[in-house]
Amino acid sequence: MSDRPETPLLDSVKYPADIRALDKSQLPQLADELRAEMISAVSQSGGHLGSGLGVVELTVAVHYVFDTPKDKLIWDVGHQAYPHKIVTGRRDRIRTLRQGGGLSGFTRRSESEYDPFGAAHSSTSISAALGFAIANKLAGESGRAIAVIGDGALSAGMAYEAMNNAEAAGNRLIVILNDNDMSIAPPVGSLRNSLARLVSSSKYLTPRRLAQKLARAMPEPLHAAARKAEEYTRGWMTGGTLFEELGFYYVGPIDGHNVEALVEVLENVRDAAEGPMLVHVVTKKGKGYAPAENAADKYHGVVKFDVVSGKQDKGPGGGPPTYTAVFAKALTAEMERDERIVAITAAMPSGTGLDKVGEAFPDRTFDVGIAEQHAVTFAAGLAAQGYRPFATIYSTFLQRAYDQVVHDVAIQNLPVRFAMDRAGLVGADGSTHAGSFDLAYLCTLPNFVVMAAADEAELCHMVHTMAVHDSGPTAVRYPRGEGVGVPLPENPQVLEIGKGRMIREGRQVAILSLGTRLEEAKKAADQLDAKGLSTSVADLRFAKPLDDALIRRLLTTHEVAITIEEAAVGGLGAHVLTLASDEGLTDGGLKIRTMRLPDRFQEHDKPEKQYAEAGLDAAGIVETALKALRVNSAGVEEVRA
Amino acid sequence: MSDRPETPLLDSVKYPADIRALDKSQLPQLADELRAEMISAVSQSGGHLGSGLGVVELTVAVHYVFDTPKDKLIWDVGHQAYPHKIVTGRRDRIRTLRQGGGLSGFTRRSESEYDPFGAAHSSTSISAALGFAIANKLAGESGRAIAVIGDGALSAGMAYEAMNNAEAAGNRLIVILNDNDMSIAPPVGSLRNSLARLVSSSKYLTPRRLAQKLARAMPEPLHAAARKAEEYTRGWMTGGTLFEELGFYYVGPIDGHNVEALVEVLENVRDAAEGPMLVHVVTKKGKGYAPAENAADKYHGVVKFDVVSGKQDKGPGGGPPTYTAVFAKALTAEMERDERIVAITAAMPSGTGLDKVGEAFPDRTFDVGIAEQHAVTFAAGLAAQGYRPFATIYSTFLQRAYDQVVHDVAIQNLPVRFAMDRAGLVGADGSTHAGSFDLAYLCTLPNFVVMAAADEAELCHMVHTMAVHDSGPTAVRYPRGEGVGVPLPENPQVLEIGKGRMIREGRQVAILSLGTRLEEAKKAADQLDAKGLSTSVADLRFAKPLDDALIRRLLTTHEVAITIEEAAVGGLGAHVLTLASDEGLTDGGLKIRTMRLPDRFQEHDKPEKQYAEAGLDAAGIVETALKALRVNSAGVEEVRA
Repeated sequence: MSDRPETPLLDSVKYPADIRALDKSQLPQLADELRAEMISAVSQSGGHLGSGLGVVELTVAVHYVFDTPKDKLIWDVGHQAYPHKIVTGRRDRIRTLRQGGGLSGFTRRSESEYDPFGAAHSSTSISAALGFAIANKLAGESGRAIAVIGDGALSAGMAYEAMNNAEAAGNRLIVILNDNDMSIAPPVGSLRNSLARLVSSSKYLTPRRLAQKLARAMPEPLHAAARKAEEYTRGWMTGGTLFEELGFYYVGPIDGHNVEALVEVLENVRDAAEGPMLVHVVTKKGKGYAPAENAADKYHGVVKFDVVSGKQDKGPGGGPPTYTAVFAKALTAEMERDERIVAITAAMPSGTGLDKVGEAFPDRTFDVGIAEQHAVTFAAGLAAQGYRPFATIYSTFLQRAYDQVVHDVAIQNLPVRFAMDRAGLVGADGSTHAGSFDLAYLCTLPNFVVMAAADEAELCHMVHTMAVHDSGPTAVRYPRGEGVGVPLPENPQVLEIGKGRMIREGRQVAILSLGTRLEEAKKAADQLDAKGLSTSVADLRFAKPLDDALIRRLLTTHEVAITIEEAAVGGLGAHVLTLASDEGLTDGGLKIRTMRLPDRFQEHDKPEKQYAEAGLDAAGIVETALKALRVNSAGVEEVRA
Repeated sequence: MSDRPETPLLDSVKYPADIRALDKSQLPQLADELRAEMISAVSQSGGHLGSGLGVVELTVAVHYVFDTPKDKLIWDVGHQAYPHKIVTGRRDRIRTLRQGGGLSGFTRRSESEYDPFGAAHSSTSISAALGFAIANKLAGESGRAIAVIGDGALSAGMAYEAMNNAEAAGNRLIVILNDNDMSIAPPVGSLRNSLARLVSSSKYLTPRRLAQKLARAMPEPLHAAARKAEEYTRGWMTGGTLFEELGFYYVGPIDGHNVEALVEVLENVRDAAEGPMLVHVVTKKGKGYAPAENAADKYHGVVKFDVVSGKQDKGPGGGPPTYTAVFAKALTAEMERDERIVAITAAMPSGTGLDKVGEAFPDRTFDVGIAEQHAVTFAAGLAAQGYRPFATIYSTFLQRAYDQVVHDVAIQNLPVRFAMDRAGLVGADGSTHAGSFDLAYLCTLPNFVVMAAADEAELCHMVHTMAVHDSGPTAVRYPRGEGVGVPLPENPQVLEIGKGRMIREGRQVAILSLGTRLEEAKKAADQLDAKGLSTSVADLRFAKPLDDALIRRLLTTHEVAITIEEAAVGGLGAHVLTLASDEGLTDGGLKIRTMRLPDRFQEHDKPEKQYAEAGLDAAGIVETALKALRVNSAGVEEVRA
C-alpha cells in the first residue's frame, strides 16, 4: 500500500451516487485523486493508459450530472473506461486489469450494471445508445443514453449510420465527442480536418454562452422556417455543420479538463428539450502524467511501468522479433522489389507494422482510418487497376469488412492480399480481439487462398507468395506476439499453392497442423514417440486449397490423424473432414480428430493459460492421440469395452 | 422485331466513342431512343426498370463527356446500368438480361471493359473509384474515376468512409450523386432531409453559374485562409456542407433529365483543377415511362410486362404465399402477442415484408436505411434493454454486419433475432445476392442458435421459437420465393432448441436435410425406396446446436448418411462431420456424404437450373446415395475394386 497515492476523497467514493453527494467544488480534487489512482493501478497491471487519463474529468462530470446506471453510459471501445471502473464499484479489483480472472480491459455487461453495453471494437456506441434510447421511448421511460466516442472512432461508417438515425431518439440521446486528436494513431481523413477547424476557429464554449445558445433554441413551438434559419446560423457560427446535417444539435467545443465547466455544460445539455445533442469535448490523451503526455503514442497501451520515471518494464528483451515486425520487414522487401505493391491499414499503423512500411514507402502506404469496409473495397479497386494491394487488418477487425471481402474481392476474384495479424488467441485483450473465426469465414468462400504461418520464416515465404499471386485473393493469418526464433530467409520462396510440408515422418499418429500450433505439435510428437507411438507431423500451410494428396496419404497410412488449428470450429478440421468424406475415406474406418478452439468465448488471460484451457498444447495433442488410440498414458492399449 | 421501337440514332451507336462522335444537339434524341429501347428490352426480360429509366440522360452525358473506358465509370449497385450496357457493346444481348447464359442484371467485370468494377450490393462505388483514382495517381496517369451513387446508397457507412478518404484522389475522383429521392424504398435518415433541403432551397445550377462558381475557386495559389472563407461561403450559399466537410467540392443541384445542360456541367467538372468533386444530380426514378412514374415503387423490379399498358405478367397466380409474406404475417402475430417485440429492416421494407409489419406496428418497426451495421448493434442495444428485436436482413446483406453480429451480439450473448430472407440460391439475381455463407459464418460463433425453415409452416414455428428465446442470439434462414404450399399453423409451437424431426423412417439410407431441400429429399427417398433402398429422412431444423442424439442414431444405424443443405462448404455438413469425428463415429467406418453448394460462385439462372447444376435435387441425392453404396442405378451392388 505504501506505493499507492493518498486519495482521501476518492476513498469516500464507491459508486457514482457518492460522487453526486459531493459538492461541485470538490470535483477537481476527486479528479486529481482518480488520475493518481489510475496511474498507480496501470503501473502495476499494464494496459491502456493514455486514453483513460484523457477522460478523468469527463468521467467524474458525467457520473455527477447523469443518473447512472439508470441513464446508460456507453464508452466507445471501452479502453478508456478504467477511471469509470474505479468509481463504479470496481476499485478493489482495478489492479487485476487484463489478468486472468481479473477485470477486463474493456467495458463488459457481466462486470457491472454500470457497463450497460460492452465494447472493445470501435464505433459501436452510438448505435447501442440509440437502442437504449428508443427502448426507453417505447416504454415511456425517461432514462437517457450517453455515448462517449473518440474522434478517431467517428471515421467508421457505422458511427455515421447511427448518427443518420439519431433524430428519432430525441433528447434521450446524447453523444459526447471526445476529441483528443489521436485515437491509436493520429486520425486521418477530412472529418479530422473539419474537427480541427472547429476547435481552432472557436473559443471554448463557456457555460454562460451555452445557456444563451440553448435558450435561443428552447422556446417552442418554433416555426419550422425560423428554426431552419437558426440551424444554419448556428452552423455558420460554430462550424459544426456535419453533425447538424446529420440531425444533431451541436454544442462545443468544451475544455475537457475543466471539470466544473464540464458539469455545467452537461447539466444544460441534460435539461435541454432539443433533439439529440452532440457535445464536442476537447481532451488531451495522457493528460496529467508527464511521461504519457510527452510520448508520441501518449502511452496508448503500456506494460508495467515505474510511476516516477514512466519507464516501462520491457522484460528481458533479446527475444525473437514479433510477427508484426517480421511482416513489416517482409512487406517492405517486397515493395522494394515490386512498385505495384501497395499497403493499406485501417488506423492500426503501429499494430500492423505499417508505420515502418510507410517510412520506407510513404506514397504507397495508406492509412484510411477506422474504415475496414472502405479499406477492402479500396484495395479491390487498386487491384482491378493492376496494383498489388496488401490489406493489413487484424483478423478480428476484418470481420468489419466481410461483405466487402465476399462481394468486392471473392466474387470478382481480385488479387487483394489480406495480412491478418492477431489471428487466434490474443491473451490480455480477450475474446473481443481474438481472431478465431477467419478460417471459417474465409474458407467457405470460393476463389480464396488461405494460409497460416507456422513461424516467422514461413510468414516471409507466404508474404512473397502472396505478392506474386495475381490470379485471385489470398490471405495469411499469423499470431500476436513473438516468433519462435527461426532464422529469416534471405530470399523468400514462392510456395506452391495448396501444398503443405512434412516436418517429420512417422507411422502411427499423424498430426496435421496449420499455423502456430506447430511447435506444440512437434513437442507432442516427441512425447508420443517416447511412448512408442511413431508420429508424423505435417505443416499444411494452406487451409484453402487443401493439400489433397498429402492429407489423403496421412489419413490412410496412420492409425489416427489429428488436425490442429488455432481457430474456431468450421475451419481447417471441418474442411479436412469434408475432404475425407467426399473421397469416401471414412467409409472403411478412419480415426480422425480435430483440435480447435472451444465453442465458447475465452476470457482474457496469459496466452499459455488460454492454450491450455483450449487444450491446444502438446499435452492436449498427446491426450487426444492416446484417447483416439484407446491406449493409456503409458502407451499400453486399453481393454476395449 | 416489329414490336421494337424505331431507334435510328441509337442504331449508329455501338460504343461510347460513337456517342462522342455525335453533335451535342443530337443527344436528346439519343436519350429518347435509348429509353425506348430499354423499356422494350426489360418488357421482355424483366428486371430493374425504374432506376435505369432515371439515368438515361446521365448515361448519355457521362459517356459523351468522359473518355470511357480509360476513365473508369462505376455505377453503384449496378442495377441502373441497363442503358449503359446498351451503349457499351451489349445491345445485342440486352434482351437476355438476368436469364441463364445472358447478361447480368448488374455491372460485371467479366462482361465488358466498360464495367471496371462489378457491383450489386450498395455503396461500394466511391471506395472502388478511389482505388482506381489512386492507382492512376501512383502511375502518373491522367484517367479519372467516376462513381455514380444514389442518395439511398449514401446512408451506408462505407460510402461515408470512402468520402472521408477522398481528398487524396484530387480531381481524379468525381462522385455523381444521383438523387432520386427513392432507392428501393423512400430513404430515411437525416441525410435525406439535408439533401431535400439542398434541392428545395436552390435553383438548378446552370452551366453559366457553375462556370462562375468554379472560376472563383480556380486561381491558385489561394491563400489558405481566403480559401477556407470561400468554402464556408459556398456552404452557406448552397447548403452542401456535409460533402464539403468531407472534403468534396460540391456542385449542384442539377436537372438530371436535361442532357445538354448535364453535358456542359460535367465538362466544367471534368476540366476543373479542384480536388474531388461531388455533382448533385436530381433525377426521377421511372422517368419517361408513365406506368413506372405513377407506380409507388417506380417499377423498381419488374417481371415481363406489356409496354403499352405497363401491365406486368404476374403469371398464373394462386400459388402458395412467399416465405417473405409468411414471415411478415408470423412476425405481426408475435408482435400482437408481445409488445416487447420490435422489427428492424435496413432499407428493404418490401423485400423483407416489414412494410406490412410496419403498417400494423409503425412505432415498433424501424427502417434504418442501408445501414446493416447500425441495424444489428441498434438491435443489440434494444435487446440489452429488454426488448425483443428481429433484425430482418437478407442473408447476403447480413455479411455487411458480421462484426456487429460477432462483437455486439454473440460475445455479449444478447437475444437478437436474425431473420435471414433470401438464404441460398436466388435465381436471376445471381451470385452477388445468393445467401450461401450464413451457415458457415454463423455456426462458427459460440452462443448462436441457427435454424433453417424447411417449409412455410416451419418458418412460423421458428419465428415463434425465436420470439420467446431470450437466452441468446437466434437466427433463421429461409429462401427467396414461394413456400411449398403446406397449411400454416394457427398456433405456432415453441420448438425444442437443437432438436430435429423425423420425416420418415427407413433402414439403409439416411438423408439429413436442413431447410429448403427437404422436398427434394423426400422425392429422393421415394426413388431410393423404389430401388429397394429403404430410406430415412430427417429435417434437422437446427444447424446449431445440432441434434446430437438424432444424428448419432441416423449415422450409426444406416448404411449411408447424407447431409444436404443449400449453403456453401463449412456449414451443416462440416459440423455434422465434426460431431461424428468428435464422437469417434468414423473410427469403425462411416459412410457419410455432405451435399452442399459447389465451391464456386454460381451464375444467375432459373432456380431449378441452379439447383440441378449444384446437384442439390432429388436426382443428385439419389446419385450420391447410390455412389456411396457402390450400387448402380438399378440398385444392384457393383463389384468392388
